[in-house]
Amino acid sequence: MGSFHSLITAPAHGDLSRLALSPYDLTPDGALTANRLRRYRVSALGFDLFYGMERLDDEVLAALARLAGQCGLVEQFRAMRRGAIINRIEKYPSENRQVLHTACRDLFDQPAAEPGASATAAVELEKLHHFLADLEQGLLLNEQGQPFDTLIQVGIGGSDLGPRAVFEALRAYSLPAREVCFIANVDPDDAAAVLSRVNLATTLVNVVSKSGSTLETATNEALVRAALVRKGLDPARHCLCVTGVGSPMDNPARYLRSFYMTESVGGRFSATSMVGLVALGFALGFEQVMEFLRGAAEMDCLAEEADPQKNPALLLALIGIWNHNYLGCSTLAVLPYAQALHRFPAHLQQCDMESNGKSVRRNGEQVTIQTGPVVWGEPGTNGQHAFYQLLHQGTEIVPIEFIGFRHSQYGVDLECEGSSSQEKLVANLLAQSLALAVGRASDNPNRAFQGNRPSLLLLGERLTPHAMGTLLALYEAKIVFQGFCWDVNSFDQEGVQLGKVLAAEILTCMRGGAGEAGETRGISGEYVLLAGMARKDAFIK
Amino acid sequence: MGSFHSLITAPAHGDLSRLALSPYDLTPDGALTANRLRRYRVSALGFDLFYGMERLDDEVLAALARLAGQCGLVEQFRAMRRGAIINRIEKYPSENRQVLHTACRDLFDQPAAEPGASATAAVELEKLHHFLADLEQGLLLNEQGQPFDTLIQVGIGGSDLGPRAVFEALRAYSLPAREVCFIANVDPDDAAAVLSRVNLATTLVNVVSKSGSTLETATNEALVRAALVRKGLDPARHCLCVTGVGSPMDNPARYLRSFYMTESVGGRFSATSMVGLVALGFALGFEQVMEFLRGAAEMDCLAEEADPQKNPALLLALIGIWNHNYLGCSTLAVLPYAQALHRFPAHLQQCDMESNGKSVRRNGEQVTIQTGPVVWGEPGTNGQHAFYQLLHQGTEIVPIEFIGFRHSQYGVDLECEGSSSQEKLVANLLAQSLALAVGRASDNPNRAFQGNRPSLLLLGERLTPHAMGTLLALYEAKIVFQGFCWDVNSFDQEGVQLGKVLAAEILTCMRGGAGEAGETRGISGEYVLLAGMARKDAFIK
Repeated sequence: MGSFHSLITAPAHGDLSRLALSPYDLTPDGALTANRLRRYRVSALGFDLFYGMERLDDEVLAALARLAGQCGLVEQFRAMRRGAIINRIEKYPSENRQVLHTACRDLFDQPAAEPGASATAAVELEKLHHFLADLEQGLLLNEQGQPFDTLIQVGIGGSDLGPRAVFEALRAYSLPAREVCFIANVDPDDAAAVLSRVNLATTLVNVVSKSGSTLETATNEALVRAALVRKGLDPARHCLCVTGVGSPMDNPARYLRSFYMTESVGGRFSATSMVGLVALGFALGFEQVMEFLRGAAEMDCLAEEADPQKNPALLLALIGIWNHNYLGCSTLAVLPYAQALHRFPAHLQQCDMESNGKSVRRNGEQVTIQTGPVVWGEPGTNGQHAFYQLLHQGTEIVPIEFIGFRHSQYGVDLECEGSSSQEKLVANLLAQSLALAVGRASDNPNRAFQGNRPSLLLLGERLTPHAMGTLLALYEAKIVFQGFCWDVNSFDQEGVQLGKVLAAEILTCMRGGAGEAGETRGISGEYVLLAGMARKDAFIK
Repeated sequence: MGSFHSLITAPAHGDLSRLALSPYDLTPDGALTANRLRRYRVSALGFDLFYGMERLDDEVLAALARLAGQCGLVEQFRAMRRGAIINRIEKYPSENRQVLHTACRDLFDQPAAEPGASATAAVELEKLHHFLADLEQGLLLNEQGQPFDTLIQVGIGGSDLGPRAVFEALRAYSLPAREVCFIANVDPDDAAAVLSRVNLATTLVNVVSKSGSTLETATNEALVRAALVRKGLDPARHCLCVTGVGSPMDNPARYLRSFYMTESVGGRFSATSMVGLVALGFALGFEQVMEFLRGAAEMDCLAEEADPQKNPALLLALIGIWNHNYLGCSTLAVLPYAQALHRFPAHLQQCDMESNGKSVRRNGEQVTIQTGPVVWGEPGTNGQHAFYQLLHQGTEIVPIEFIGFRHSQYGVDLECEGSSSQEKLVANLLAQSLALAVGRASDNPNRAFQGNRPSLLLLGERLTPHAMGTLLALYEAKIVFQGFCWDVNSFDQEGVQLGKVLAAEILTCMRGGAGEAGETRGISGEYVLLAGMARKDAFIK
């Protein structure tokens, strides 16, 4: 890779700072014209991205395109897909790894961008294919010769949020009598609640941890194995695992099947690796898994287009930077008008905030700009009856990414007061985007809407496995582009380490009695008091 | 009520602005002492509120206490509970209503603060008592003489998020064979997914809408009734309702039982009215409902204490204002270390952002300060493996309210590597609060933690119905106090109206063909184009 600018050094930065002094005003009559809506649209892979409701114009778009070029966003993305070691900080110890989640789905065009990594992914996929076929053909049954009808995924963070979001999004396409549940939290009530409602005899347990040593996952695996044993079941006939080769969990004798993920796939980007696919395949079958991967692969290819007008992921990234760095908005709301996407904002919250919630550049220097925003969201229309009040009339300006589909998944609908539910859903989606942009004057100040609240709209046909793959890869690429632009390493997570260390130390204090332990281990001495307070009564052992 | 200051006019405002120039530095050795942790704590009703990890000192606390006094926060709260008409904007048309959600649980001390409203609530509660007894004694059975084992709550916004958060929080205490599901979204897939997994023959459907005319709820009620009829079931034997007297839904012939809520209880504050209690009672039984109400009632009484050191809701409100208005933080994260509270942040997001996401003072003037923050959150420890990266090392400072409990609900736990899961959970909770506050230096800039990221910790014994009532009322009172301080009307939601109006207009365009409809109805002319695009293919009718 050559040397590229980052946001702060790019010549376009000055232009954008100047343009941000008078962003496009969406509120006057004629500001939001049909021509604007028609032109400010990118259509690709079954999605229309409408961005006419953003506070930008041709001059801003041109400057953003220059920024993308000056920062080499697409060049860096191409290098990433081809195996460049970009998970690193110069001059300091860091993970020093390739970033190859895209290889997990780069299976359809030959040659793959990084053939070795895709070949490794294909091997695991073939193992999954066989496993699912064995389940379907009745070759894998429980101790009583019954088929498995439930899979519990035990994992946390990247081994939970992405797989859960994708499964929930596509649950409508589940095979008959196949259910998936998740246990993530070290809170013992998480496992207890799930275990209280499944029939363990017909349940598979997929334990997922890249390192094979995640505290929460190890603890929950132990809880679930104990529950299996209490029911007289053999854990080795019920437990699967997804882990790294050679990890403490890489012990095939303990598992019915073992699947592997590679070091170059980060947890929050792992939904298209075995981390996400085992549960998805159990629920939907192998063909739908391949459609999901195909959708993601197509978006990855599109993300190599240099022109933002042909590259929705790049455009999404640039618009986000405009709102965050130039218009000064601290947060981003992702609001899907599709109940099936109810956990997708939580996944994006992880993927985005863990990737770009950084303060150090890739050369080890402190950043001098804002990096990643706070990302949050809940499905519409639910949110309209809740927090949208603040979006319309509050003092915080929240840029919004709306996601919607023209058709429902189940196709079970009813006409009521002259329109179907699906029509009402889409009408509300469009209406919100309009209302936020143009506002409305009123003689009653409490009923006035200032407008100029930016949003964009991703509108697809139907939330299928293919569309979900496309949507997931779109956001993954967006996040990666933004990280390049801010010049942060989007692929490490050093910020989660300190809490882990201190938790271990406090556990020692809690068990060992308050006092010396804290001092000797470097905990801010008196914090041991809190550890003591947590023990006010005895713990449940 | 007398005339009180608001934040901007209160004499304490100047003091706080000055103090905010050099907030307490938590990072030096000795900054977070045992004495500080011991002193910066309020203990009441089974909860400890630890706030030593906030960036404040005695001087700030004294100024905040003066602010509370000058703004008459407690006096206004007392007036609210006694029936003052505070849901209003002076000189402009507004709802002009009392705000009496507290009356729903003011049933334990005599006389009640507003005896009339509490008597009305008691009547509905007695109806619920009889209904639950009839279910228990087998007097209410389905067409085949079977007991009901499932209740679907159909409602949206306040009729969904609060009831859902409370039910999920207390699901561990459910009666055997009692399940509760929720349908909220107008997305037909929401209803389809729920209906595909319940046995309608043994299902009650509780339709909840104060106005009796909520579009989503009416549509979903129609979908569910049609599904009942398709199964040969009589909707009038399966459907309950909760609505306002005289609403379009107030038609007892159509419902097995009808419960009522009053105009003075706003949707987002309605979890302790029949809106929340019918589903909770079905799941847990009447005695647990009363414990839930008792917990809330005790917190309401405590919220009348003038001294913030004896009034955790007031203190929480003041600390929030310190972080938001003086330290300039745009958002607030509520992070429960209790998986059962997984929907509580979504409820608070609604309750807080819909109440205080306002720009107009109660005298009709524009505010000149920031009002309500963006509220968001997910359970820990899950979040630690996701967005906590940004909390520790990002460029946005996010104040945090941690919530935890010393004991689990189910009591099913296992010792693993020397500690139980519950111990690990609490240790992580304490460790995060410590790590965010004190930070840690490092020679590797990417592994350095700046610290000074404010948080507080609400630590309870166990998440019981009583504790959940206390916690809910704590946050309701906090939100009300903040609204008084910002001088906004926390009880209306004019900001949701424009979207509704435009959605109806767009629906007409979508059905009627693009073109004139938009123009004649005042939609920004060319937006009709978008409506047309939404129809790209035919809708599912």
